[in-house]
Amino acid sequence: MKKYTILIIALFVCVGAFAQEIGNFMGREPIVSPEIGKETITFRFSAPYADDVKLTGGFAPLQKVETSFGTMDMPGNIDMVKGENSLWSVTVPMPEPELYTYSFIVDGVSVNDPNNIFMQRDGTRYLSVLLVPGELTENYFEANERGNLNQVWYDSPTLGMTRRLFVYTPYGYADSKDKYPVLYLLHGAGGDEDAWSTMGRTCQILDNLIEKGLAKPMICVMPNGNPTQYAARTLMIDEKPVDRNNPEMGMMGNLYPKSIVEDIVPFIEKTYKVDARPKSRAIAGLSMGGGHTITTSLMYPGFFDYICPLSMGIGMRFGNDNTDQEEIMKNYETQFKALKKEGYKLYFLACGDTDFLFESAKTLDKMLTDTGCEHTFYVTPGGHTWSNWRIYLNTFAPLLFK
Amino acid sequence: MKKYTILIIALFVCVGAFAQEIGNFMGREPIVSPEIGKETITFRFSAPYADDVKLTGGFAPLQKVETSFGTMDMPGNIDMVKGENSLWSVTVPMPEPELYTYSFIVDGVSVNDPNNIFMQRDGTRYLSVLLVPGELTENYFEANERGNLNQVWYDSPTLGMTRRLFVYTPYGYADSKDKYPVLYLLHGAGGDEDAWSTMGRTCQILDNLIEKGLAKPMICVMPNGNPTQYAARTLMIDEKPVDRNNPEMGMMGNLYPKSIVEDIVPFIEKTYKVDARPKSRAIAGLSMGGGHTITTSLMYPGFFDYICPLSMGIGMRFGNDNTDQEEIMKNYETQFKALKKEGYKLYFLACGDTDFLFESAKTLDKMLTDTGCEHTFYVTPGGHTWSNWRIYLNTFAPLLFK
Repeated sequence: MKKYTILIIALFVCVGAFAQEIGNFMGREPIVSPEIGKETITFRFSAPYADDVKLTGGFAPLQKVETSFGTMDMPGNIDMVKGENSLWSVTVPMPEPELYTYSFIVDGVSVNDPNNIFMQRDGTRYLSVLLVPGELTENYFEANERGNLNQVWYDSPTLGMTRRLFVYTPYGYADSKDKYPVLYLLHGAGGDEDAWSTMGRTCQILDNLIEKGLAKPMICVMPNGNPTQYAARTLMIDEKPVDRNNPEMGMMGNLYPKSIVEDIVPFIEKTYKVDARPKSRAIAGLSMGGGHTITTSLMYPGFFDYICPLSMGIGMRFGNDNTDQEEIMKNYETQFKALKKEGYKLYFLACGDTDFLFESAKTLDKMLTDTGCEHTFYVTPGGHTWSNWRIYLNTFAPLLFK
Repeated sequence: MKKYTILIIALFVCVGAFAQEIGNFMGREPIVSPEIGKETITFRFSAPYADDVKLTGGFAPLQKVETSFGTMDMPGNIDMVKGENSLWSVTVPMPEPELYTYSFIVDGVSVNDPNNIFMQRDGTRYLSVLLVPGELTENYFEANERGNLNQVWYDSPTLGMTRRLFVYTPYGYADSKDKYPVLYLLHGAGGDEDAWSTMGRTCQILDNLIEKGLAKPMICVMPNGNPTQYAARTLMIDEKPVDRNNPEMGMMGNLYPKSIVEDIVPFIEKTYKVDARPKSRAIAGLSMGGGHTITTSLMYPGFFDYICPLSMGIGMRFGNDNTDQEEIMKNYETQFKALKKEGYKLYFLACGDTDFLFESAKTLDKMLTDTGCEHTFYVTPGGHTWSNWRIYLNTFAPLLFK
């Protein structure tokens, strides 16, 4: 079978050479990075002409950085050392189990790890990913029984566009005669319909929870929360010219929440095998999507029985904000009382204790208490991070539809 | 509505800062790259400490490179110039319409364009993408009427694994009562189930052809052609330990072609609204996938009425290959005669005239002629490139199911 072996090698070499259409990589030695050892991780990067190569990432020791919001703790840089064949490397102690992003800083330029196939996009930015195994990250790895992820176009008469959303259907969906409950899962500012399934590891988390019998099999719908976008900007669709002076079309306006209930939910309930009752509908979202969650559930009380705003609250004040907070709070009071009256099964508010929106989450917590709305206020260490949002999904998904 | 504006800015800044979990980008000026002008394209890259920044990509003038397969023409490097604020830039004349990949070479290190959200993965390698508009690339942009792309798990008893494939369903599929024809579209060595929908622009090409009435609405199934893989290596699934000495399990073995007909086709025909007749089945593939196309259609004559091997042929000889070519050709003769006897509607063989497999394609062309198999031998300029494979898909898809 020598013929096959030779042919395969030839195909790999040639397809590589031509398909990649770049000539500067031929004859390169394979470099292993990151190499996950027993108690350490080694990063390697080939840079023959660099004077200085550093590693930075979520696992690096924090340093103080001045920002317009005050001093913040941000990951620092770790020096790498130049070895044989101009291979820079550094070995770090095994970080706590977590999904980290990282990059190299080569003479001041941020570079992804070219030897790591695992990369994620955060907004416009791509970063290499390191997934450290452990109890916390157990559900971030692929389960044995895996659901499907669908990129689906739907009409939004409310926004006047054909838009894209992602739909997760659980393992066994295609062959089942069941009608499934649906979680509507919303991203934050700077994200898009891709965010939860990549950075949020939604498919992996739901697959694992369902396989372990901890969560009910559910459909999960991840729409695009930027009302002026058709889809993630990785597609080449010109955005519709919208009236940017119309606050209802803005990120915190009412048109997008309206489109969730009046466009997205009917589309999903028509297209998929769905139990179309409030008790089988959940809405959750992070940051801006937490705002959408709060707004949508207040605009349509009784529509979602499960409401989970994450890293968001009410009553934020920024800069020279001189809105009448008293009036805003009075309106909220009326709305939350209406929500209570219509009823729901779970109000799960989660926030990190160093989140810049923690105060607003505490305000929401107080409002819920004052209006007699039963709820959970789930406070974790840490800030406004995907680490927390994965933990929140992993925590509230088992509480849904029960 | 000032409150909203301030909040939105705050969310963008803070979500960015925390979610990206990297501290070295704050306060960065927005850089536009690539900037597509009327007759030029400008690339920009910020690198304060670099001594030398170059641009390379499919549009760069070719240069001779020595490889183990002889001298090859490969894209060269274009010098960039350091300007104000350490911003390196270069303006190049507008290249011919095409989808190009490119990168910067910063002091010898290959770096993607951090200001271009449009990136593609080719095997293990990520590259920035430039799509130059024009007649050739018209169908590579998003159409108005867009189909969906689904990431789907299926059982492969033949390979003993649950594996992933991508399924494109055309615009209107969900609401239609029609039964659709199916194109099984196979990738090359080094690729995976993701390759055709990203580098191949399959969804865009089929959407456009269908919207223009040039191609029949069809489902397109893009499986993973590496028999030892569950899915693309971007997922974290340990590959099954397979008997690597079993050539049938190898890339050119018979088990994967068997799994197409006995596992994948029945799964698709059970799960989707499919016309399950040979006249509504097409198989096409590039390079290694062209080999799979040839093998599968010969192993199961009469099963696919449309057969399109791309950039592949028969009778390759590499290195010290001393297989008995005469016997191999005799076997092919018998098989192609059986294929002719069973019948088919289209045999579309395509290859570039500088492809390293062009001789093998000519051998296949001759074999088809000698055995009386009606066929098209579609020869284009150029080599073993995604440019050609997109052109081929754009060319043969309108010929299917008619």
